[in-house]
Amino acid sequence: MTRIDRLREASANQKKPANYAVFNQHNITYFANTSSATALLITENGENILYASTVNYEQAKAEAENVAVECLRRGENVLERIGKQVGSASLCVDVLSIESWRALGKALNGENRLEADSQLIRDLRKIKDPQEISLIREACRIADIGMKTAQEVIRPGIKEKEVAAEAEYAMRKAGSDGVAFDTIVASGHCCAYPHGTFLEKTIHEGDLVVVDLGAKWRFYHSDITRTFVVGKHSEKQAKMFEAVKLAQKSAFKATAPDVWAKDVDACARLVIAEAGFGDFFVHNLGHGVGLEVHEAPVLSPDSKDLLEVGNVLTIEPGVYLPGYGGVRVEDTVLVKEDGAEKLTLIPYTLSL
Amino acid sequence: MTRIDRLREASANQKKPANYAVFNQHNITYFANTSSATALLITENGENILYASTVNYEQAKAEAENVAVECLRRGENVLERIGKQVGSASLCVDVLSIESWRALGKALNGENRLEADSQLIRDLRKIKDPQEISLIREACRIADIGMKTAQEVIRPGIKEKEVAAEAEYAMRKAGSDGVAFDTIVASGHCCAYPHGTFLEKTIHEGDLVVVDLGAKWRFYHSDITRTFVVGKHSEKQAKMFEAVKLAQKSAFKATAPDVWAKDVDACARLVIAEAGFGDFFVHNLGHGVGLEVHEAPVLSPDSKDLLEVGNVLTIEPGVYLPGYGGVRVEDTVLVKEDGAEKLTLIPYTLSL
Repeated sequence: MTRIDRLREASANQKKPANYAVFNQHNITYFANTSSATALLITENGENILYASTVNYEQAKAEAENVAVECLRRGENVLERIGKQVGSASLCVDVLSIESWRALGKALNGENRLEADSQLIRDLRKIKDPQEISLIREACRIADIGMKTAQEVIRPGIKEKEVAAEAEYAMRKAGSDGVAFDTIVASGHCCAYPHGTFLEKTIHEGDLVVVDLGAKWRFYHSDITRTFVVGKHSEKQAKMFEAVKLAQKSAFKATAPDVWAKDVDACARLVIAEAGFGDFFVHNLGHGVGLEVHEAPVLSPDSKDLLEVGNVLTIEPGVYLPGYGGVRVEDTVLVKEDGAEKLTLIPYTLSL
Repeated sequence: MTRIDRLREASANQKKPANYAVFNQHNITYFANTSSATALLITENGENILYASTVNYEQAKAEAENVAVECLRRGENVLERIGKQVGSASLCVDVLSIESWRALGKALNGENRLEADSQLIRDLRKIKDPQEISLIREACRIADIGMKTAQEVIRPGIKEKEVAAEAEYAMRKAGSDGVAFDTIVASGHCCAYPHGTFLEKTIHEGDLVVVDLGAKWRFYHSDITRTFVVGKHSEKQAKMFEAVKLAQKSAFKATAPDVWAKDVDACARLVIAEAGFGDFFVHNLGHGVGLEVHEAPVLSPDSKDLLEVGNVLTIEPGVYLPGYGGVRVEDTVLVKEDGAEKLTLIPYTLSL
């Protein structure tokens, strides 16, 4: 059963229109194995049409699977083309801007023929199949090499950006298709910002250094964070680190099928609160990882996701003290029948 | 006059609602100099409110300019928060998905209070100010270093991905904040795809190799492409190269204020057609470069843009012969009062 077949089935079960237009690039890649397309139309007649512009047409034809590739003529509007194809039938779309929604509504002679549903594909993509898991495993293997390299090169006097350069270079040499996201190397008071800064700073003895990086492998991503202290750590640094590490351990242990994601988040939040840092864990516990580095499920206090076998997600508690510094520990994790497996494997070391 | 003031002025001139909500990340960065926010609300009372989630709040406060930063409470919906702030007034938005549009309409007690306009900010961002030009210049300087490195390392037996590794590493060492987009190194028949592939191939003697890369510097991007032949080039390769180089030269010469972008595109297209490759220049001539690597103006046969002083754009004609290979030459260019200036400066060399 192809992924498109599963979309048809899920769509029918939920009584959605039998025509489905996919516009999100990652969703298109999910179904057609190419990033070189403008839209994918799944029709009630059983056709799967991938529309590619002239610049991408040859590559889309070479890469695409399970679809017929059609070329958009120069200047041709994909929404009008889809409108013509669908005719007077109803159409479900995954995502559209309000401006494109109106244009598509016009092409279909009425917005009432249109339905928006981003949830259906979100829920399909949430459960990774064996092929996806193997690609994410490889992305994680490469990220581990990047993190190991960062750990090896961090020393007093090196710039944050130089650490990023070495880690990214090592990942490329290990086969990475590119960075999963902008590498974060944040030291001293800057690592109190979970998303870091511009990597200009020089790293000093005694600094906390947060390194957050990932690799890409065949459209799939990985995500890992470690926090180090250059030289001997202080008592306060160790206290932050132990709280975060324990929170991560507790959340990891709780990660299993049929567990609510919000309950896993709560496990970590409880440990951090008990250590006295409750006000300083300012983000969600984690997020799904796959074709995007942030996707479903979400691990947060208000998450509605129930964990399932095949989810791949991050567990990344953190403590951030404004003006002082932060600590975060993060692994990419696979949900399995009997619990969870870490896909990123670099040990947790504080002092370098 | 701040950029926000200019938005207020342009908005008033076009009789748009005096409340403006900005959701696009690059637009927010344009006005507030931070990428750590969820939305920016410009109110009719003269307030500029930047909404940041708890994870980004401290960083947004430290980075943001010309705005008051407010924290979104955990679980709080930014659309509802904006709805409360705006009350019963009308509101213009830059971009929203159909699902968010409906939610915001609900928060405002009626979608009829909402207006969507992506054009206003697109047109402001199209004209770069001196600060932006200086940041793009630096991004171009770094990209030149990446291209020079690629040129130096390409030789028979090296893998495409190794070339990318060396070029990206050199750019990082030269200060790059990261890659502007996924680096393309495409050799042999693969460079017949303008957007390249996964960089797995080994480069062989006689191959055409297209290298397309860019750097980031303080949110701003650069974009350059060169095409090489490893060793001695064939007559056919030289013919393709000369046509593309001449097309680029012709388009560059035509680039000036008050010239239609479509006419610049036509200059390049004519040269390529006259060389007999008219069917194989399968993409637009170029695009604006700034906070995004693809932004306004667009240089294409159906462009509506008139070039203006302060535009920064690419000129990148190409010829792609399916199954054989491709040639593209691209520079990032600044439109000035008396014509145009190339910001990427690596010479055009075919044989290595």
